[in-house]
Amino acid sequence: MNTDPYRVPAGQQVKLSNWDTHEAGGLDKAVARLRMEELSAALADWQEKLYAESKQSLLVVLQARDAGGKDGVVKKVIGAFNPNGVHIANFKVPSEEERAHDFLWRIHAQVPRQGMIGVFNRSHYEDVLVTRVYNLIGREEAEQRLDHIRNFEALLSDSGTRVVKFYLHISKGEQKERLQARLDEPDKQWKFNPGDLKDRAHWDDFTHAYETALATSTADAPWYVIPADRKWFRDLLIAQILVETLANMNPQHPALTYDPSAVTVV
Amino acid sequence: MNTDPYRVPAGQQVKLSNWDTHEAGGLDKAVARLRMEELSAALADWQEKLYAESKQSLLVVLQARDAGGKDGVVKKVIGAFNPNGVHIANFKVPSEEERAHDFLWRIHAQVPRQGMIGVFNRSHYEDVLVTRVYNLIGREEAEQRLDHIRNFEALLSDSGTRVVKFYLHISKGEQKERLQARLDEPDKQWKFNPGDLKDRAHWDDFTHAYETALATSTADAPWYVIPADRKWFRDLLIAQILVETLANMNPQHPALTYDPSAVTVV
Repeated sequence: MNTDPYRVPAGQQVKLSNWDTHEAGGLDKAVARLRMEELSAALADWQEKLYAESKQSLLVVLQARDAGGKDGVVKKVIGAFNPNGVHIANFKVPSEEERAHDFLWRIHAQVPRQGMIGVFNRSHYEDVLVTRVYNLIGREEAEQRLDHIRNFEALLSDSGTRVVKFYLHISKGEQKERLQARLDEPDKQWKFNPGDLKDRAHWDDFTHAYETALATSTADAPWYVIPADRKWFRDLLIAQILVETLANMNPQHPALTYDPSAVTVV
Repeated sequence: MNTDPYRVPAGQQVKLSNWDTHEAGGLDKAVARLRMEELSAALADWQEKLYAESKQSLLVVLQARDAGGKDGVVKKVIGAFNPNGVHIANFKVPSEEERAHDFLWRIHAQVPRQGMIGVFNRSHYEDVLVTRVYNLIGREEAEQRLDHIRNFEALLSDSGTRVVKFYLHISKGEQKERLQARLDEPDKQWKFNPGDLKDRAHWDDFTHAYETALATSTADAPWYVIPADRKWFRDLLIAQILVETLANMNPQHPALTYDPSAVTVV
């Protein structure tokens, strides 16, 4: 499977209506399951080397509309890693203390240290999405923030942290089905937030805000638009992109600082 | 399987030489594998409720000698949870900033928030183990620290955080085999730390220090001594204790703040 078509080329203005939400790379679910097992093993292998090497780190940014599948990706894809090497940051509505700092302050504090894989379940991009849709900031301030985000991600890249960003792209009909399922199934009712309907009513505004955010795609911190109506394809595609990213980073077991043949365990 | 015999009774002085490292509860590996699948599913179910409820939290403390299996437990047992609800803290040698505070300062900062499962891979107990063995602190200071630890864990218990502590108990022979394997297998050589041999040479001193630490077992923050020579039994026993602990905490989906039947998704 070629993952290039899902990457937003640097500098390109995206029109999300041109990106399919439902396609599945010509694969079926049974093939995908087998492939997912291979990819999960590859993810675990690469992570072990990343951890052993402890020179680089990987930051995975997950953004989506409500019910877009962020939590599913964490469970199914990130779950393939050894939990010891993973740090997940869930960014919720900022606290008073967080609001008393610049918008990247709380984000910076959560970036992964060397050897680690960091996952942002929501991220600094919320600060140009929900804030923009509800006019908490103007267009100019949003543009300024996007510049700050570019600079911040360049700092991370230059310091050994590879950034890879996923927008989980679902259709309006798919979101309706998923929200309805949360209402209908007793075990899922706690997940439903009536506020989600407000965001849904601003569907097109969010589309536009996402299109603006996706313009921060660069070679070192690319955005991928993931067709996410079918959960199994969403997970498979992200797993494959992460394997490719880690292979490209190519972490290696570190040089030994001792001579194993000279050591005796008594 | 009755897990009571593995729990250190509150107030009891433990003699580790009386605790078997190699036993396996009369089980064999094939039975254990099936049972582990059931327990993993139960762990995931309970965690989902803990997360949904968001009133209580669980703190799992892992302590062991080198090659005792802490990382294996994280991978195999903690790996059963949804990574989104897990926070793992790896405590290494304290930084200058950390040493400029009381020994519980950096620990307190890492306790799990409501709804989360926290895992301490090494913990505040290092501050009465390695420090005591190498005489960085005297016996009196160690006793004082143990009192502070009791008070700290009582604060957590009283605030909705259940604490459960595992000492992974391996034999000296088993440690030798595992360290030797790290020397012999190229993929594992990065894990070997020549300093581990120094600790090994102080085997009995560490035994004594652990026995002192295990005296902090209470009803609300119990220590379990886990026979850990056989990895599959170690994992199974810990998984079962965690299921029992979570069942006892009995988290529930929260009461709804809206009426699902009154909501329409348009």
